[in-house]
Amino acid sequence: MHLAGVLAPLPTPFDQSGELDLARLRTALPQWLQSPLSGFVLLGTNGEAGLLNDSESASVIETARSIVPTSRTLIAGTARESTREAIAAARVAASLGVDGVLVRTPCFFKGQMTPEAFERHYTAVADSSPVPVLLYNFTAATGVNLQPDVAARLASHPNIVGIKESGSDISQIADLVALTPPGFATLAGSASTFHAAVYAGVSGGILALAALLPDACVRLFDLTRNGHQADARLLQRQLLPLARLISTSYGVPGLKAALRLSGIDVGFPRLPLAPASESAVAALKQALNTFEEAFA
Amino acid sequence: MHLAGVLAPLPTPFDQSGELDLARLRTALPQWLQSPLSGFVLLGTNGEAGLLNDSESASVIETARSIVPTSRTLIAGTARESTREAIAAARVAASLGVDGVLVRTPCFFKGQMTPEAFERHYTAVADSSPVPVLLYNFTAATGVNLQPDVAARLASHPNIVGIKESGSDISQIADLVALTPPGFATLAGSASTFHAAVYAGVSGGILALAALLPDACVRLFDLTRNGHQADARLLQRQLLPLARLISTSYGVPGLKAALRLSGIDVGFPRLPLAPASESAVAALKQALNTFEEAFA
Amino acid sequence: MHLAGVLAPLPTPFDQSGELDLARLRTALPQWLQSPLSGFVLLGTNGEAGLLNDSESASVIETARSIVPTSRTLIAGTARESTREAIAAARVAASLGVDGVLVRTPCFFKGQMTPEAFERHYTAVADSSPVPVLLYNFTAATGVNLQPDVAARLASHPNIVGIKESGSDISQIADLVALTPPGFATLAGSASTFHAAVYAGVSGGILALAALLPDACVRLFDLTRNGHQADARLLQRQLLPLARLISTSYGVPGLKAALRLSGIDVGFPRLPLAPASESAVAALKQALNTFEEAFA
Amino acid sequence: MHLAGVLAPLPTPFDQSGELDLARLRTALPQWLQSPLSGFVLLGTNGEAGLLNDSESASVIETARSIVPTSRTLIAGTARESTREAIAAARVAASLGVDGVLVRTPCFFKGQMTPEAFERHYTAVADSSPVPVLLYNFTAATGVNLQPDVAARLASHPNIVGIKESGSDISQIADLVALTPPGFATLAGSASTFHAAVYAGVSGGILALAALLPDACVRLFDLTRNGHQADARLLQRQLLPLARLISTSYGVPGLKAALRLSGIDVGFPRLPLAPASESAVAALKQALNTFEEAFA
Repeated sequence: MHLAGVLAPLPTPFDQSGELDLARLRTALPQWLQSPLSGFVLLGTNGEAGLLNDSESASVIETARSIVPTSRTLIAGTARESTREAIAAARVAASLGVDGVLVRTPCFFKGQMTPEAFERHYTAVADSSPVPVLLYNFTAATGVNLQPDVAARLASHPNIVGIKESGSDISQIADLVALTPPGFATLAGSASTFHAAVYAGVSGGILALAALLPDACVRLFDLTRNGHQADARLLQRQLLPLARLISTSYGVPGLKAALRLSGIDVGFPRLPLAPASESAVAALKQALNTFEEAFA
Repeated sequence: MHLAGVLAPLPTPFDQSGELDLARLRTALPQWLQSPLSGFVLLGTNGEAGLLNDSESASVIETARSIVPTSRTLIAGTARESTREAIAAARVAASLGVDGVLVRTPCFFKGQMTPEAFERHYTAVADSSPVPVLLYNFTAATGVNLQPDVAARLASHPNIVGIKESGSDISQIADLVALTPPGFATLAGSASTFHAAVYAGVSGGILALAALLPDACVRLFDLTRNGHQADARLLQRQLLPLARLISTSYGVPGLKAALRLSGIDVGFPRLPLAPASESAVAALKQALNTFEEAFA
Repeated sequence: MHLAGVLAPLPTPFDQSGELDLARLRTALPQWLQSPLSGFVLLGTNGEAGLLNDSESASVIETARSIVPTSRTLIAGTARESTREAIAAARVAASLGVDGVLVRTPCFFKGQMTPEAFERHYTAVADSSPVPVLLYNFTAATGVNLQPDVAARLASHPNIVGIKESGSDISQIADLVALTPPGFATLAGSASTFHAAVYAGVSGGILALAALLPDACVRLFDLTRNGHQADARLLQRQLLPLARLISTSYGVPGLKAALRLSGIDVGFPRLPLAPASESAVAALKQALNTFEEAFA
Repeated sequence: MHLAGVLAPLPTPFDQSGELDLARLRTALPQWLQSPLSGFVLLGTNGEAGLLNDSESASVIETARSIVPTSRTLIAGTARESTREAIAAARVAASLGVDGVLVRTPCFFKGQMTPEAFERHYTAVADSSPVPVLLYNFTAATGVNLQPDVAARLASHPNIVGIKESGSDISQIADLVALTPPGFATLAGSASTFHAAVYAGVSGGILALAALLPDACVRLFDLTRNGHQADARLLQRQLLPLARLISTSYGVPGLKAALRLSGIDVGFPRLPLAPASESAVAALKQALNTFEEAFA
């Protein structure tokens, strides 16, 4: 599994009535495969993972694996609140051919989500998962924080190979880089601060923005790593408005609308999410145009 | 369905290896049936709902309904992030004989959980649920807030009959009481402020503490409603330490440990939760003793 | 000093150019003296205390004391970040005839505002103040929380006689009542939850709303204490919109505008505050009308 | 005024009884003057500004200006909640010879601290200040946030020349850099993320850590600007523990204790702050030793 560079979390297509739409997924995947991305993540936050049942989740993985060549890393999100369900999900995903699983912290019982609880959970999942495990910390959505020292202890498990850290606290990211061993992959999850995260030493990123603008995200990664400060800073700045629109402002519905504007049809979000409003689509269109003019 | 007075959310028993333990449930239920509680809630937060799969959830409901007489209200928690899954869960629960379903707000896509999203979700669930629906707002756990004006709009749906509000913001509770029609049940979810909530006009409460101290919780409700201010205030004060220990301090593992100390065996919590520590058990024991001496 | 019942924090009048306007204060005070309020607080949050210098503060106290008879309690806010400045301010206020001083927690050095820091500060101030000291906890504005156990320890100081708790967490208020000795006055600071606070056992309140609607606030206190549940609940409900408009929504500028609409001219707020907008004034006018119709 | 590179906020010395100790200041200043720092800030957060009265503040400025040569930038913090007091403080500071004033956002009336309020405040101060004004945003301490677009509007005022942004949100810092004109100085206030902030384009920093480790902070700035990625990242990493100890962990008392360990005697903090505990001093000593061994 190649855990460096830029990976994209892929949205899950639904049709207008909310049915899983594998046909749309089969059409969209080859479009993403033309990009220089290192790999893809199915069933993450942007894949509306929490809105699919287990059987649908399996279909998504099976379909994607049949199209994504083994030369590209394919990861599936398999987070569950229950440790045993998380193990079961990892096993299913592994049996369907993913290279690794991305396991978000459980979070519902916030007061009980101590370092010990995270260690119990991840150790049990990693002990049982047939494929390597990535930790996943997304405090803004979960309300809990997997601290760098806990991640560092978990990094000593032979089947825990990396972490996606979606926060934009650069000193927490720097701590992760410093406290974990060289082979362990720290991947940034926030496109708004990707440039600073790369500078702080991450191996790469899993960025929603990379599903929309794969070339630009990869270029940002390369420019930053190669010391082209001024160009990197400018590109980061140009990406910022779109990064915000598809995360903070409009979320997954915004990402789906922006992809449609860019020629990739991933259908509609599932209830309780609703398609992006007309004004959201207009804002996305303008931001895409502005970016394309600058980037061309 | 009788939606007034004090209801208890019931913990779900697991054995030491984490298997669902229906035998323990069958033993415990008759103990709770000896209490003056108005009814019971299965598969809520304290039922570790998020840690069971669909098939286990059905077994819990089926078992409980076979024991709880129809003279007592039996409600099942059927929250899901996805509207279609929430509908499916409500249908299953209804088919197994519950009197109503308690549907916590979806919450993972926080930025998208607008009033409109809540209205879409609850309207669709209530349209399809064969049994009445209760809203459920638990901001401390979910990070989202179902505002009283939104709840009031939903209260006009003929199949939405009440709300469990777990927050302790008394002005929000007072708003709920004032903005919803007389037949709509506003139920408090926080035992720490139950006395003030009753005074603000709620119909009753769904209180974890009521699984542990049903008589005292019912007495607190009665004293407050009947204007015995000094006695009510004293009893609320006496209940406060235990209310906190089984919520903020030790959560579900604390409730399970306290029940065991009180002679009701609901087994162990499921991973990633762990049994209450020895020091937690000692603190619970002392608080129980202190309360019993005062209450006797 | 009579520390029970309802006290009003008084706004400080400024003229349109921002000068302290003692003439307006001299005209307004007799209007408040016609009310059944137990007393008044100068230079609190609603007195824009932080916007006056020491010399202006002294003028406000001197002017008010010359008009408020000794049969009414007159308290001055004398909070300062520095302990020595807080002592100096208490001494000046005492020399000008106030019955007590209200001392908000220091808060700027948030990380250092430990229980020990609060104990150091308040003990030093109370040791040196010629008049009794009231603690003042206002977490929403300060970002720090003076916990009930710390307040209870401070309550043993012979010169610390009460606390104004502006939060609306009823269990924190109940703790204060329970942990402090009978002679110690716990005063609520939030009109939105005053009814629940009185029911939880507070001695009274220091309520911005009482500067605007003194009769209604006193009646709410009396109804609640005398067990008229239904009437008290209704009145609390009727007061809620105005309570929110002059706190959360429009703050001090809102209170000043509402007072002007009610015939008490306390001039303008001081920069950086600005007078309430036209739409704010319209909302206040409507809420006042609605209330007056219901209350008459 | 030279607003680039690294400036240090200077602690204000007090003696053991809490008296302002100008003798200690006179001794300490020449020690800092041996460093390569661009300038100094008096009466900021680390100068315990909120704990001094106006007359003491003037003495601090006067003393420092008599020792700091005009070749070094000397700035004074002159924040006040009241606009008119902030103007008065800026005038006094200017008359005593400072090159500029640093004006933290007012913050007590949080709900009213709208963009318009900030614009009113800063425009009035800048209109009247005889010396250039720097904005100062410190959300962690104030609970309010001066957004980049508001700062950008204020940057068009000819007498507003820069901003100290103490937050560590790199995308907010990047916005400031992008939205303000080239001559406007964006200065970072957080040493923990200084490296990322410089990479995002700030002109420099005002860092408490620079009072303690001026050479290392200047070297970090230079390494980052000159593209020495690996060395810069390593040095940032080495500085992180001390940066945290003197901010989050122990605050101003920690900085004063660390300076004493390093041979600069700035006396004691003022009440309600207390000197760093023995365990804090031990932690600081160890961190200083670890750093010095690595940096030497």
